[in-house]
Amino acid sequence: MSVTEEAVASFTDTPDERLRTILERVVVHLHELVREVAPTTAEWEAAIGFLTAVGAACDDTRQEFILLSDVLGVSSLVETLNGPPVGSGGTEGTVLGPFHLTASPPRALGDSIDDLGGGRRALVTGRVVDPSGDPVPGAEIDVWQCTEDGFYDVQEPGRQPAGNGRGLFHADTDGRFRFRTVVPGHYPIPTDGPVGDLLRATRRHPYRPAHVHLLVSAPGFATLTTHLFVAGSPYLDADAVFAVKEGLVVDFAPDDSEEDGMDRPFRHADVEVVLVPAVVP
Amino acid sequence: MSVTEEAVASFTDTPDERLRTILERVVVHLHELVREVAPTTAEWEAAIGFLTAVGAACDDTRQEFILLSDVLGVSSLVETLNGPPVGSGGTEGTVLGPFHLTASPPRALGDSIDDLGGGRRALVTGRVVDPSGDPVPGAEIDVWQCTEDGFYDVQEPGRQPAGNGRGLFHADTDGRFRFRTVVPGHYPIPTDGPVGDLLRATRRHPYRPAHVHLLVSAPGFATLTTHLFVAGSPYLDADAVFAVKEGLVVDFAPDDSEEDGMDRPFRHADVEVVLVPAVVP
Repeated sequence: MSVTEEAVASFTDTPDERLRTILERVVVHLHELVREVAPTTAEWEAAIGFLTAVGAACDDTRQEFILLSDVLGVSSLVETLNGPPVGSGGTEGTVLGPFHLTASPPRALGDSIDDLGGGRRALVTGRVVDPSGDPVPGAEIDVWQCTEDGFYDVQEPGRQPAGNGRGLFHADTDGRFRFRTVVPGHYPIPTDGPVGDLLRATRRHPYRPAHVHLLVSAPGFATLTTHLFVAGSPYLDADAVFAVKEGLVVDFAPDDSEEDGMDRPFRHADVEVVLVPAVVP
Repeated sequence: MSVTEEAVASFTDTPDERLRTILERVVVHLHELVREVAPTTAEWEAAIGFLTAVGAACDDTRQEFILLSDVLGVSSLVETLNGPPVGSGGTEGTVLGPFHLTASPPRALGDSIDDLGGGRRALVTGRVVDPSGDPVPGAEIDVWQCTEDGFYDVQEPGRQPAGNGRGLFHADTDGRFRFRTVVPGHYPIPTDGPVGDLLRATRRHPYRPAHVHLLVSAPGFATLTTHLFVAGSPYLDADAVFAVKEGLVVDFAPDDSEEDGMDRPFRHADVEVVLVPAVVP
């Protein structure tokens, strides 16, 4: 019996069938990779050292393993597989990213998620609907984004109050939501850790196009992890984490209308979020 | 372009060709695994959480990523691939394990590596040779093992002096080496971390058969990472890390002869370590 067969067989008694399947396939693919690249002992030690450094970079406000999953395209692939089936009409999913680490503060519809002020004020309005266009009343919309300068609250604990750029909203009875904010900036993912070392060693840039994160959920519907990408942002065609989908690019258009709490003119993004029914296993 | 093709293409400008190849193949196999098992977002988060916990369990005296590599059979496969080619006559390689963390104290031939004393005193003698049987004079032999109770020095900092069970030796001009020790015990790999959780969730036992680690090197020869497994030890047929090879099982036979520093009778293991020439890339 080869060591691969032995390792696969070691999981035979796993009570949870799904866990057994996943671990068996992890072993098979890891061993295939090892046989294919035939790492030297020094290269294997370097891989162990890299993973250890990734682990050491993680703390309450930093998730370096998600960052690693992101720059290898794994996160994008996972969210695409979990997004709405092709042809369902659902809004496409994309990566969660490493900054969904703290609970977003509950806010009322129309509130601002920006506590700092900024030059490019924006209004985001939208409606959560099902594939027939019927509203999803009371849908929960968890929103997080960086500042105009490209930093999340957890990256600037001295400068930004906790919860800046974040908000937990509930759509009204017609599925509508709205919040005030600033247009987020494009930004580099954190490069002061081992994932940054990887990007430098491979001559990859660390930039992500400007975006607002949305995590939208409602009973009976598949939870949607997605972004609103800001049309015209640099790096829309070269996202460091491979998360851009054309259908998720939204115009933050100049708007000169009267809106509560908005100085004119402001930027206005209006979106429709289509949730698909949850698959009952 | 699929996200897999995009992620592979992102490494195109990597200056180090070997690194580029490895990363490309890592991406391909990781994406194949993801497409095959189609993890839910929650399962992906659980995988991130597991790796993060493995990272958090690592410190100066604990290497949980090596332990993970070990229980998945990856370490054994890597060492087999790096061991002597089939038919070369070289001694087989096996896993480094997670306990080669501290430098072994230099010791003179014949010294004891055991500072505690123990019931089953042993003498290990051997000769480092090339495939023709010619001696490899001055070969470096790095030795580490656990106590009779199955613990390495780094696991019992209060009870064992640092360096207990470890020794760095140099063979004499005839390639010969010898050291005194105790017969090591079989033992469970550490189960108080996330790898232990994995073993419990999959109903796997954590035991390794009794063994002495050897890391043997000499200029011009491929470095050999191997074990001497103690014949008759429990778990020789079910090593938790898949490291046993029949040719590495050694008799620690009762010996009643006169030996410096040994009370009679003692256990005696005599081994031949065959190094193969280094491959010049």
